[in-house]
Amino acid sequence: MSAGTIFVYELIGTAVLILLGTGVVANNLLRKTNGNSTGFLFINVGWAFAVFTGASLAAPSGAHLNPAVTLGLAIAGKSEWADVPIYFAAQMLGAIIGAVLCWLTYKLQFDDHPEPENTLGIFSTAPTVPNKLWNTVTEIIGTFVLVAWILLSPTISVGDGGTPEFGNSALGYAGVAFVVLVIGTSLGGPTGYAINPARDLGPRIAYALLPIKGKGNLNWNYSWVPVVGPLIGGALAALLFLIVPTA
Amino acid sequence: MSAGTIFVYELIGTAVLILLGTGVVANNLLRKTNGNSTGFLFINVGWAFAVFTGASLAAPSGAHLNPAVTLGLAIAGKSEWADVPIYFAAQMLGAIIGAVLCWLTYKLQFDDHPEPENTLGIFSTAPTVPNKLWNTVTEIIGTFVLVAWILLSPTISVGDGGTPEFGNSALGYAGVAFVVLVIGTSLGGPTGYAINPARDLGPRIAYALLPIKGKGNLNWNYSWVPVVGPLIGGALAALLFLIVPTA
Amino acid sequence: MSAGTIFVYELIGTAVLILLGTGVVANNLLRKTNGNSTGFLFINVGWAFAVFTGASLAAPSGAHLNPAVTLGLAIAGKSEWADVPIYFAAQMLGAIIGAVLCWLTYKLQFDDHPEPENTLGIFSTAPTVPNKLWNTVTEIIGTFVLVAWILLSPTISVGDGGTPEFGNSALGYAGVAFVVLVIGTSLGGPTGYAINPARDLGPRIAYALLPIKGKGNLNWNYSWVPVVGPLIGGALAALLFLIVPTA
Amino acid sequence: MSAGTIFVYELIGTAVLILLGTGVVANNLLRKTNGNSTGFLFINVGWAFAVFTGASLAAPSGAHLNPAVTLGLAIAGKSEWADVPIYFAAQMLGAIIGAVLCWLTYKLQFDDHPEPENTLGIFSTAPTVPNKLWNTVTEIIGTFVLVAWILLSPTISVGDGGTPEFGNSALGYAGVAFVVLVIGTSLGGPTGYAINPARDLGPRIAYALLPIKGKGNLNWNYSWVPVVGPLIGGALAALLFLIVPTA
Repeated sequence: MSAGTIFVYELIGTAVLILLGTGVVANNLLRKTNGNSTGFLFINVGWAFAVFTGASLAAPSGAHLNPAVTLGLAIAGKSEWADVPIYFAAQMLGAIIGAVLCWLTYKLQFDDHPEPENTLGIFSTAPTVPNKLWNTVTEIIGTFVLVAWILLSPTISVGDGGTPEFGNSALGYAGVAFVVLVIGTSLGGPTGYAINPARDLGPRIAYALLPIKGKGNLNWNYSWVPVVGPLIGGALAALLFLIVPTA
Repeated sequence: MSAGTIFVYELIGTAVLILLGTGVVANNLLRKTNGNSTGFLFINVGWAFAVFTGASLAAPSGAHLNPAVTLGLAIAGKSEWADVPIYFAAQMLGAIIGAVLCWLTYKLQFDDHPEPENTLGIFSTAPTVPNKLWNTVTEIIGTFVLVAWILLSPTISVGDGGTPEFGNSALGYAGVAFVVLVIGTSLGGPTGYAINPARDLGPRIAYALLPIKGKGNLNWNYSWVPVVGPLIGGALAALLFLIVPTA
Repeated sequence: MSAGTIFVYELIGTAVLILLGTGVVANNLLRKTNGNSTGFLFINVGWAFAVFTGASLAAPSGAHLNPAVTLGLAIAGKSEWADVPIYFAAQMLGAIIGAVLCWLTYKLQFDDHPEPENTLGIFSTAPTVPNKLWNTVTEIIGTFVLVAWILLSPTISVGDGGTPEFGNSALGYAGVAFVVLVIGTSLGGPTGYAINPARDLGPRIAYALLPIKGKGNLNWNYSWVPVVGPLIGGALAALLFLIVPTA
Repeated sequence: MSAGTIFVYELIGTAVLILLGTGVVANNLLRKTNGNSTGFLFINVGWAFAVFTGASLAAPSGAHLNPAVTLGLAIAGKSEWADVPIYFAAQMLGAIIGAVLCWLTYKLQFDDHPEPENTLGIFSTAPTVPNKLWNTVTEIIGTFVLVAWILLSPTISVGDGGTPEFGNSALGYAGVAFVVLVIGTSLGGPTGYAINPARDLGPRIAYALLPIKGKGNLNWNYSWVPVVGPLIGGALAALLFLIVPTA
């Protein structure tokens, strides 16, 4: 596929993913919303179907939406190394745009929120018990499951261009949504399951740039964990893919 | 397809959509129901599968069920402009009929409800923080995601007559239900995600006409927001569709 | 299909449907369970996928599992009138067996339950506001949506023998589960959505016969509503099917 | 299929199943997690899509992931008796590895948990009302439903090698996830639905071996119930399969 197709569709898909994903956390966290304090299953459902929506929109570019997926597919030989920088740039830019759209959607609620210093949690993840080594381990394991599923699940054929083939229905992308749903419910307890460097770093940059009223600390100190952990997890999944016998 | 097919199936599909969608809010809001105060995820699940049910019933007419979808498909060249008034009329009439059926289903609970002045919330949306400009922005963004997904998702082929082709299973419509589910969880916090002019205006008219005991203010002042916002969002999505490169 | 196939598969499918459906209510209502007081969405999810499981098991008999569906298909000309009594008998017997299996599953919890007089609610439905006329209206509307969807949704072809054809995947039955999910969330508030005479009457008979410790009143006075309402709803849906233009 | 394929894929699939399944309970039970006390529906959703993820990963080996399924398929003539020990060994080893990965994911939360003596509940099941006979009955009924669905559901063809054929989409495995979801909501109240000997015994062994801070009693006394009950349930389902008329 062309560099233009990759760039446009990864950007649109990642922007929609992040708009919807950060949106469900805004709905749960901000005080004057219909979804205030609905809970963690609500957040898991929102992120899962944010992935469904973004991925089915981005099918023409292979629907990576995640640098850890792009890296894993490249190591596994399913994607061109030359395209990797295009994917990364589009994913990061898309993630920033998505976070800005989330802020516009919830502009009034951000302005009215009584604890504005906690709004980073809408955009980026944070650990419940801070410890960079173990937080990284958690992110590695979560991303490993995601990328291993994408690569190994033999019922999805990832074509030479990196595009999974799901037959003739957008519904095929429900599979990856279900995997993200369970990674959230099951592995999201300690670090909020970034499992995607663009998902965490892009919105953190947006939070730094946006004029959000009373915004809190950016926690740059932690920001490398949800970048490095997922990249390691994606790479390890690709190595597993290269050593298991093909069915 | 014939004008009769469009009219009959859009009317049936929208009536079922609105019966089920307003029904889940009635179940959550009215006091003497099994679902009282179940919460926002419950409402999101109800509306999502209301769309599944209505859309799979209305497949012969292309399952628009929403003037913003009809407008977007027409701008995108996927639907005949001459059919647009037939779609709009059937959607509005269907929405009114659906709201009446919801009232009949919950007749005893409406009569027994201790705060009857708040029952407009069952039929039509309202903002959590009123501000017509920003409320419109929220409705534009939500509807943009819906219509962009319908138009761009390349794994669904929208035929010349505007009918999406989902292979031979009603299950294909689960895709649009998943998108509506996440629009609700993620973008429904500020305005209750009308994202459909008929969904909001039709039931508001029904509420005005029905002899509901102790009913409250109709909030006509706000009523144009969930009409204009979705139409703008649908039009913008069609413009995006016209400029992105085809895959 | 043969009478034996109909009888065996309707019996197995209905038994599994009722075991799982009454099971989720037992889990929610009985005190010493893992699911105690989880709520109405939990019950809706349980019943929806109880239908998925029972229906995909009963595909060889057409997966009616419900006298209102059988009646609707017969009126619509999709099923033989001569087979109707076989369907009804298998559905009733299956429902009784399913209710007995639910009691065996939760035997210890029934014995330990501190309010045994409320356990009829596990087996059969009851109105939140008793009024036989309006309760019947609610059951008619709910069943009408179910049977209209089965008959009208043109993307499912109901073969001459009454067997819906879902391609080559049990997953096709997820469609009917999604419809039952939303009927529960949206129309289940007033009467607990029996929408199936066998689902209500069979377990009521089982409750009458089983040696459940301290069991309460059988509420025979109400028992005809969830039988008559669904049959009327199914018949009305078949009439709608006969008058709408085919796509 | 070769013994190597069976071993590798059953091991990977069961490890992922148990990592995700025990993970959702850890997230719900441990104090310093994002999902603390989310509830039983949350746990049911986690386990259901843990099965989806593990099963779609393990498609090359037939995706048993459960000795009760392996036994049922062998009795039904769908799997080779000679392969049964390979399945059992891979499933047990995979389950132990999955439990270790869960502990690594939640290492900090295990260390900080104020009631460490209750952490066996993350790994293995326990009855709400202890009574070995009736607890075994509950496990038999739950596993019977699972294995009967796998064997009887005629819309899935289980090939000679025991591999269900779901067409060309991983999404086919959503069917078994929906069945596990409803077994959890509906039959999981009394014993926590082990319905899989490896799912219960493997993590119990891991709990015995891992250096978990302040860990509690291993409850070996109960440990045979979630092994024997599921094996009986799987065998009974195979007998049902052998006596019902084929459609």
